[in-house]
Amino acid sequence: MKKTLKEIAELVDGTISGEENLMITGVTNIEDAGPNDITFAVAPHLEKALASRAAAVIIPSNVTKFAKPAIRVDHPRMAFTKLLELFTPPLTVKREVHESVIVGNHVKLGENVAILPYAVLADDVVIGDNTVIYPHTYIGQGVVVGSDTLIHSNVAIREFCRIGSRVVVQSGAVIGSDGFGFITMQGRHHKVPQVGNVVIEDDAEIGANVTIDRATTGSTIVRAGTKIDNLVHLAHNVVIGENCFLVAQTGIAGSVQIGNNVTFAGQCGSAGHLLIGDNCVFAAKSGIISDVPAGSFYAGFPARPHKEWLRGEAALHKLPGLLKKFRDLEKRLEQVEEKNNQ
Amino acid sequence: MKKTLKEIAELVDGTISGEENLMITGVTNIEDAGPNDITFAVAPHLEKALASRAAAVIIPSNVTKFAKPAIRVDHPRMAFTKLLELFTPPLTVKREVHESVIVGNHVKLGENVAILPYAVLADDVVIGDNTVIYPHTYIGQGVVVGSDTLIHSNVAIREFCRIGSRVVVQSGAVIGSDGFGFITMQGRHHKVPQVGNVVIEDDAEIGANVTIDRATTGSTIVRAGTKIDNLVHLAHNVVIGENCFLVAQTGIAGSVQIGNNVTFAGQCGSAGHLLIGDNCVFAAKSGIISDVPAGSFYAGFPARPHKEWLRGEAALHKLPGLLKKFRDLEKRLEQVEEKNNQ
Amino acid sequence: MKKTLKEIAELVDGTISGEENLMITGVTNIEDAGPNDITFAVAPHLEKALASRAAAVIIPSNVTKFAKPAIRVDHPRMAFTKLLELFTPPLTVKREVHESVIVGNHVKLGENVAILPYAVLADDVVIGDNTVIYPHTYIGQGVVVGSDTLIHSNVAIREFCRIGSRVVVQSGAVIGSDGFGFITMQGRHHKVPQVGNVVIEDDAEIGANVTIDRATTGSTIVRAGTKIDNLVHLAHNVVIGENCFLVAQTGIAGSVQIGNNVTFAGQCGSAGHLLIGDNCVFAAKSGIISDVPAGSFYAGFPARPHKEWLRGEAALHKLPGLLKKFRDLEKRLEQVEEKNNQ
Repeated sequence: MKKTLKEIAELVDGTISGEENLMITGVTNIEDAGPNDITFAVAPHLEKALASRAAAVIIPSNVTKFAKPAIRVDHPRMAFTKLLELFTPPLTVKREVHESVIVGNHVKLGENVAILPYAVLADDVVIGDNTVIYPHTYIGQGVVVGSDTLIHSNVAIREFCRIGSRVVVQSGAVIGSDGFGFITMQGRHHKVPQVGNVVIEDDAEIGANVTIDRATTGSTIVRAGTKIDNLVHLAHNVVIGENCFLVAQTGIAGSVQIGNNVTFAGQCGSAGHLLIGDNCVFAAKSGIISDVPAGSFYAGFPARPHKEWLRGEAALHKLPGLLKKFRDLEKRLEQVEEKNNQ
Repeated sequence: MKKTLKEIAELVDGTISGEENLMITGVTNIEDAGPNDITFAVAPHLEKALASRAAAVIIPSNVTKFAKPAIRVDHPRMAFTKLLELFTPPLTVKREVHESVIVGNHVKLGENVAILPYAVLADDVVIGDNTVIYPHTYIGQGVVVGSDTLIHSNVAIREFCRIGSRVVVQSGAVIGSDGFGFITMQGRHHKVPQVGNVVIEDDAEIGANVTIDRATTGSTIVRAGTKIDNLVHLAHNVVIGENCFLVAQTGIAGSVQIGNNVTFAGQCGSAGHLLIGDNCVFAAKSGIISDVPAGSFYAGFPARPHKEWLRGEAALHKLPGLLKKFRDLEKRLEQVEEKNNQ
Repeated sequence: MKKTLKEIAELVDGTISGEENLMITGVTNIEDAGPNDITFAVAPHLEKALASRAAAVIIPSNVTKFAKPAIRVDHPRMAFTKLLELFTPPLTVKREVHESVIVGNHVKLGENVAILPYAVLADDVVIGDNTVIYPHTYIGQGVVVGSDTLIHSNVAIREFCRIGSRVVVQSGAVIGSDGFGFITMQGRHHKVPQVGNVVIEDDAEIGANVTIDRATTGSTIVRAGTKIDNLVHLAHNVVIGENCFLVAQTGIAGSVQIGNNVTFAGQCGSAGHLLIGDNCVFAAKSGIISDVPAGSFYAGFPARPHKEWLRGEAALHKLPGLLKKFRDLEKRLEQVEEKNNQ
């Protein structure tokens, strides 16, 4: 791929400074950029971009001086993303069902699908148009997958789960494993059948080696547009709202209901049966043990409002000093008492 | 499946209130129950069940008034579980070894097994009667699996491990990976061969994407009836007693020995080489760094008795206030001192 | 395998005490050792070894008295490792490409490789000499794997990643999954193409069900000799130095750069874009939120110098007592003030 700076500026709707016939052959980050690459930078990385070997830099419109060929746009990261897509098109896969694929009875395949070697589709599976399924993926009985969905290798989707359109499932994810439900009688644990399913709505992304348990009855649900990072665990009957972020290694216990646009940073955990409102943000390693109202920014364990957490941390920092000061104060008071008693 | 309320009451050994010929066609939770479904409820959910669309509700024997058709039993959840099993029988799988399965030399297969497409059984594997193995599962050399065991797709069981009877292994679990053992000489890490195995006893359950490392020598052991949730990690030479619960994302370091009926809530961690007694309970995110006597209820990091942890948390809560009060007290003491020195 | 104590002593360059023709048939840990086994012990386990059923014990050179046949060496664990290798040679696998393996176009296979059933190698893959790939492993387009590397079953290595020589990848690991990169516009998250790769250098080990995301652009890198335990997560563009240890369930967020010989104990987490110097050690469950200078020993969340953390923990322990003492002091001061005001 080769484009002049002028051609690129038109693509991202930006304004050029510098030689407009400059030839660009690659798009990459500041550190790796070579003399034929374009990169992008926003504050505080503008200096680093200037000092880099990049041929040109995409920068914010409001940067006035920049001593290197540049394209100014309102959203540099968005423009950069557009160029990444242009310069590095996704892998092409053969639009075919590989001869080694096992296809059960009554399976319905959409137009233009690609099912790669050794995938197994059980009976009654439905796959939408343009969907791609990589090797060693198992799709259980009665599973319905939408259109334009991408399922990577070594994924397991158990019976009767439903996956929407334009969903991405990274390698090794398990969707529809049994919920962790037991009845304990005389110290022994008896399995409660987990007869519900998992529903992943449109435009969701499920990270590598994520586990999402099927509901005991009903559905565990990940709503449209929600993005789940690697090694996240969702227990049975959890409902995650739209456009949430669950960063790596977060775990949500059973029957938690989460609103829209909620963000969990890495390694968060939530106790079961809680309600978490829209637009909440949880700092990394938060441990949530009670309902959280919409719009909250929480941190710590037990999770509490971030400001309160900061105040607590600051106080903690002063504690060793306080203990020392307290002993001094005690002595001074003793002296006063002694004097008074003389 | 269709059953009258009377038939259901007989099945769960309960007493009916309401129309005994009422026809029931499904069993589900309160929220999802429709006008032909039965559900169950215990306090504090009785009101919600009353307001639901369910045709009938299984309730505790000691509930006197309930303005809906009901079946009273001693253990509503147990009765509900029985009905789930009745109304939603497990998936039927063909009792055959699929033609694509790779079967090594000297493999012994029990009666009535089902081995699904693309499973691989290495040499000297033994599989008991009625055991089911899903696609893309790898069973290494010399592995012995008991009867009535269910191994889901994409599971790896490495050489010489032993899996009991009536065990369930969820998708993506890895049993028998190398323990994390190295000798460091001059800053370089040399692998210690991990020549032991993993033993999973009868009636255990292993969650999705769990990892259980083989012992350096001897065995890593999960004893009978223990249930392990998703994404749990057990290091080499760990021994977990009978009927334990390990909730999701818990990690147990090398050589820890755990008694019977111990519960780890989610995201717990234990340092290596510890002894944890019978009947202990660890709250979520506990970090265990020393031996724990039998019957303990611990929380926090470092994990300590739950009461002590609560007291600590309460004290922490008061710390910012204490700092303020301390400054006031200092000033008051100064004033007293000044007065005394006049 | 049978060796006399004398033969073993020669192998490990040690000195014998006891019968040098004693026949040894096995090598194992103290607990499992039988009357024909050799084990090893260092303080404080010497007594336990003495009381064991082992035929002989490898002990440190500086142990003077030991009432059992023994071999004295400078590094007992290293000697033990050498014997483990001798007595339990690794599994032999057939040096062949199994007929069920899918081999893409332009794939280059080295000498003496073993590719086991149902592995899938996409186009342009290169595999070095003596490398072993277990069943159900997927190697994406253009991946290069070095020599003497061992890739276990159910592993996914996505397109264009590079794996060095003498690397071990445990089962279920995912290398090269998409980084978790999105641009949020009006509350909706748009995927940023992740067009970089992952580079695993020589002698690294990657644990079971580990996830390592490909870089947005450039490479996510694990340098030579670094050992990664199970269920660890590395985000896009992370760089891990040489000879590090990442213990189980640790997670490193995007673009973190880590020096050489750094150790993360279990369940650590690091925020993104940080610099962590050489030779740092992080205690279990550390939460790192700022750059860390070389040679640091950190603990806690937020992670801080271990000594400071210990001091903080000790102070915390005293806090409930302090609150009580403070109330006493307040009363005493009030009495003084009253007296003074009389």
